[in-house]
Amino acid sequence: MADRVLIAGASGYAGALAARLVARHPALELAAVTSRSDVGKPLSALYPHHRVDSVLEELDVDGPHGEVQAAIVAYPHGAAAPTVAALRARGVKVIDLSADFRLRSLETYEQWYVEHTAPELLAGAVYGLPERYREQLRGAELVANPGCFPTAAILALAPLGPYLEDVVIDAKTGVSGAGRAATDASHFVSVTENVKPYKTAGTHRHTPEIEQELVVSGAATGLTVSFTPHLLPLDQGELLSCYLRLADGAPPAADLLREAYAEERWVDVVDGPPGVRDVRETNRCVLHAARDERTGRTSVFAAIDNLWKGTSSQAIQNLNLMLGHDEQAGLS
Amino acid sequence: MADRVLIAGASGYAGALAARLVARHPALELAAVTSRSDVGKPLSALYPHHRVDSVLEELDVDGPHGEVQAAIVAYPHGAAAPTVAALRARGVKVIDLSADFRLRSLETYEQWYVEHTAPELLAGAVYGLPERYREQLRGAELVANPGCFPTAAILALAPLGPYLEDVVIDAKTGVSGAGRAATDASHFVSVTENVKPYKTAGTHRHTPEIEQELVVSGAATGLTVSFTPHLLPLDQGELLSCYLRLADGAPPAADLLREAYAEERWVDVVDGPPGVRDVRETNRCVLHAARDERTGRTSVFAAIDNLWKGTSSQAIQNLNLMLGHDEQAGLS
Amino acid sequence: MADRVLIAGASGYAGALAARLVARHPALELAAVTSRSDVGKPLSALYPHHRVDSVLEELDVDGPHGEVQAAIVAYPHGAAAPTVAALRARGVKVIDLSADFRLRSLETYEQWYVEHTAPELLAGAVYGLPERYREQLRGAELVANPGCFPTAAILALAPLGPYLEDVVIDAKTGVSGAGRAATDASHFVSVTENVKPYKTAGTHRHTPEIEQELVVSGAATGLTVSFTPHLLPLDQGELLSCYLRLADGAPPAADLLREAYAEERWVDVVDGPPGVRDVRETNRCVLHAARDERTGRTSVFAAIDNLWKGTSSQAIQNLNLMLGHDEQAGLS
Amino acid sequence: MADRVLIAGASGYAGALAARLVARHPALELAAVTSRSDVGKPLSALYPHHRVDSVLEELDVDGPHGEVQAAIVAYPHGAAAPTVAALRARGVKVIDLSADFRLRSLETYEQWYVEHTAPELLAGAVYGLPERYREQLRGAELVANPGCFPTAAILALAPLGPYLEDVVIDAKTGVSGAGRAATDASHFVSVTENVKPYKTAGTHRHTPEIEQELVVSGAATGLTVSFTPHLLPLDQGELLSCYLRLADGAPPAADLLREAYAEERWVDVVDGPPGVRDVRETNRCVLHAARDERTGRTSVFAAIDNLWKGTSSQAIQNLNLMLGHDEQAGLS
Repeated sequence: MADRVLIAGASGYAGALAARLVARHPALELAAVTSRSDVGKPLSALYPHHRVDSVLEELDVDGPHGEVQAAIVAYPHGAAAPTVAALRARGVKVIDLSADFRLRSLETYEQWYVEHTAPELLAGAVYGLPERYREQLRGAELVANPGCFPTAAILALAPLGPYLEDVVIDAKTGVSGAGRAATDASHFVSVTENVKPYKTAGTHRHTPEIEQELVVSGAATGLTVSFTPHLLPLDQGELLSCYLRLADGAPPAADLLREAYAEERWVDVVDGPPGVRDVRETNRCVLHAARDERTGRTSVFAAIDNLWKGTSSQAIQNLNLMLGHDEQAGLS
Repeated sequence: MADRVLIAGASGYAGALAARLVARHPALELAAVTSRSDVGKPLSALYPHHRVDSVLEELDVDGPHGEVQAAIVAYPHGAAAPTVAALRARGVKVIDLSADFRLRSLETYEQWYVEHTAPELLAGAVYGLPERYREQLRGAELVANPGCFPTAAILALAPLGPYLEDVVIDAKTGVSGAGRAATDASHFVSVTENVKPYKTAGTHRHTPEIEQELVVSGAATGLTVSFTPHLLPLDQGELLSCYLRLADGAPPAADLLREAYAEERWVDVVDGPPGVRDVRETNRCVLHAARDERTGRTSVFAAIDNLWKGTSSQAIQNLNLMLGHDEQAGLS
Repeated sequence: MADRVLIAGASGYAGALAARLVARHPALELAAVTSRSDVGKPLSALYPHHRVDSVLEELDVDGPHGEVQAAIVAYPHGAAAPTVAALRARGVKVIDLSADFRLRSLETYEQWYVEHTAPELLAGAVYGLPERYREQLRGAELVANPGCFPTAAILALAPLGPYLEDVVIDAKTGVSGAGRAATDASHFVSVTENVKPYKTAGTHRHTPEIEQELVVSGAATGLTVSFTPHLLPLDQGELLSCYLRLADGAPPAADLLREAYAEERWVDVVDGPPGVRDVRETNRCVLHAARDERTGRTSVFAAIDNLWKGTSSQAIQNLNLMLGHDEQAGLS
Repeated sequence: MADRVLIAGASGYAGALAARLVARHPALELAAVTSRSDVGKPLSALYPHHRVDSVLEELDVDGPHGEVQAAIVAYPHGAAAPTVAALRARGVKVIDLSADFRLRSLETYEQWYVEHTAPELLAGAVYGLPERYREQLRGAELVANPGCFPTAAILALAPLGPYLEDVVIDAKTGVSGAGRAATDASHFVSVTENVKPYKTAGTHRHTPEIEQELVVSGAATGLTVSFTPHLLPLDQGELLSCYLRLADGAPPAADLLREAYAEERWVDVVDGPPGVRDVRETNRCVLHAARDERTGRTSVFAAIDNLWKGTSSQAIQNLNLMLGHDEQAGLS
């Protein structure tokens, strides 16, 4: 029998895509979709191309929504924690798409985000990057789905962990990464024929998440990463250009990457520069490493679809592991 | 009386725009436009929006084309040098849009490009970045117009010259930068909803030009720059994101930039992140510097229109200086 | 001495462009810019590329804003009429960019729009299409600047007036036509890689304006036009594809158009299909007519920039006529 | 056991997508992919996102390629007919993506295209629009897959057949419709921020195909359709805006459409205007009808993905019917 899955916050881009992927999954059933803004509308009215007709409901954790096997919570950081806690209290397995359970250090979280309302759950949360934490994800009860930029950054850099020095990341993202809200910045006329950096002083909140996982992967404690995102005129897609030096004696980055991902279904290491079209609407991450002999620097490029491997299809991959299904089910 | 100006190679994007700017210039007269591929066509057939009706001719340096006051040569590197030499031999002042006279070192040129056919002209060529070489440009007879990436990079970094350490440049460019040739890479379907790096191993030929000018501006001899360009889904526009460290005791980058450009008409130093739409179809360069206190790195962002300040309007600015006109004539 | 011009409503796309064109006009002076939403900000903060540093003020018709020679009012319909009336009462010449004074019939206006608050001004208003009403515009005191779609439609079809039958217009417009408001419909993700009709039942309010002017141009009284707009993934630009039959004995459409516009500076009749890039950021309208011999239908295509000839540069052209300046001043 | 399927001409957009759909189809096996230009390359080198690793071969109908159960031929018109004939001679069931077997009248074909080299096969070919010819397609041996424009036009208009009068079709298409060839017209810089009609005199070759099928659907013999395509800045997607009159006594178009497609899985009739994003990368056609009471005209809008329902996914739908599989297999 199919596992029943709730999507809380299905009216945003990430939740809506998660709902579609669950609805078409061979071993899952879409139990309900909820929204804080569009209750009563069918999801297909907001996203015709997803073809999910379920009607958006108000979340009722104490009622039927607490009786599902698993939930994907697609709320902003801060708003997610209490909902996750309530669902966990009802015994529901949860994948949280927000940042609320990604950082192991409560102090770091509260420094970069807000006060945490469910710190007692932090210790039990597993970071949902299957290529790094597959074993812990099997049977996990609370998974912190990584940010889109950290997904690409960690896949690109973790295999180089012990050798990493002097890391600069220039990130390029499509507009869907900023969400569905209509603002001056997301207006078509602001975006088309434009490219613009933001958070130029190194203040993007995905930075500590990247640093945390690189240190876990063997980088020197205290490694700091300079991370600067840019908004591009595309809807989906994210390219990270990582510039770094490798410590003396390090093998070539391409070798380290190929070795790390030889058995991985969704991570490809390629010889030529990757484009985000190569990964559009897939769970793939494509990596490419090059070495500039003249300067001694190494570059690693990572392309993902920010809404798929960067968020919602990765959530399904995690859900498969949590619930004991084939890891690839529902992903191709 | 207006100075008569020839555009050699007017069927490409840069030459065509130069022709338009000359045609509407209050103190210049468009003497002739030539082409190696489209002889006999009016320029307006190729570029209706430029509204220049002159008919493309075959270049005849020994004939009437050698009798103009000045010429802008818009040929590929290697092909430019002999044409420039022929025009100079007739006494024509020349602005060369190619790389043939940009590098002071013949050895460096031949290492990155091809054998040079007019090395005797190198010593007399002035590098055409008015904000750095204004005095030398007044009355110059041969000007090497900078590459589009170097224009942005040097404007962004030269004022920091003596303090520069560890420079990484991530460049983002629209498709017009790759020229008018129809290729798989310039096909709309390849470009839209995509972003892709190229020359990932530090082999882009604009690199030595950037390094040369930074050293001239006070950077340590031997400074190497890691430079990686990316192709974006836009037609015109170029954003350079420069990541670096400043030597101990350096003033803030923003201060150095503001001081350097306080009197400049076309370079603006702004507080917020610049987008390339802000400079579209203008001779402007917009700069923004930020410091990441946590990592100690400084970022400088530069936005230009690759066809305007990056090429053709800068050529007009240079021409104004060469011929003794108001530097701003014909530019706004 | 330069005529002093007020722009009321300069924070929208049309008003802001009008401000830029006035600011750079050789015979005009930008007296003030006003806004209902962004008082206190420099216009350049909203539109850096326009490079107009004037600070947005609250409109004060009884004070200094009533002392200018002319005003361009860039308000929505309904809101425009009282402001226009107040300015006229102070003796200011006005160009109104809204629909409030375009329709000669009060009844038709109130049927398609709202109740009119200044109907007494209708009789004296001149329809601001210089190619049709040049003589009346010289010295006019109130000009109703045409809608963007009507500008293209009337230029395309008025010369065929007496012969017009069975007119269908399929309009394609960029997003700037819908204004600066951030909505679901103007969100980049909604627009990119999309094309969508709107007002599909013939209810677009520009329709009666087109019909009015075609009847003035000789079309049969009662001629109805089917007009359907479509939103395209571009910022500026508008293409109208007009399908019609010509009455027996009519000359070819291309001949009628060429004859009508032989002396016009801004209307070009061309042999091949026009694209909106050909007219981007210009006051041009490019027309192309073709006849399908098999079906007997004639097509006329019109390309304009909706913000330029479709709105703001046309307003300058009208202002030149009203104030007795060279009609082309400030337009190229 | 899976049916073995050959894709002849898999290096173009349509053939490559067909190869991907066959490769992932539960009841089909991709036997081979052939190409006239890229023999020896893996298909994934040309189209990484399709993830089909099969290597492109030279077509050998007399050898192994003649031993498959079915073939999809993705050649240009004229070139297709002899290949189709050779495959049929070996007993292979064929879906031809070209126009070579779409027109029932040899005379009409030769008038609009070229001399036909296999006219003897015309009588046996079935027009591959499942919603109109489902029964004939079951067990068919040669299927002429419709053009992309005719697919949308016929789905939009055939249910109105007996009532149709005065049909004008304004078609809007993405660049992939023009194929993979790199030309001036497909260059990114030509397309972005542009929209342009082509074949403005009614000469597009899809016209007679539309007329043929409308007459089959009950329209008056001799009905002529005015058809004008436009190129838009999008990669995939096609919107047809059909303007017409319905004969007296006709039911509303929306009712006729809903009735015709009530049982259809892939055709949706909706109340609001459809956009091509709603159908991107699906086999769907979305229809919307509206009536302009004032002019008496009816509009019908049809949105499809030109490469999917317009070509390759429709070919799979046809293949399912030909080979006796579930019609929906491999399509969602």
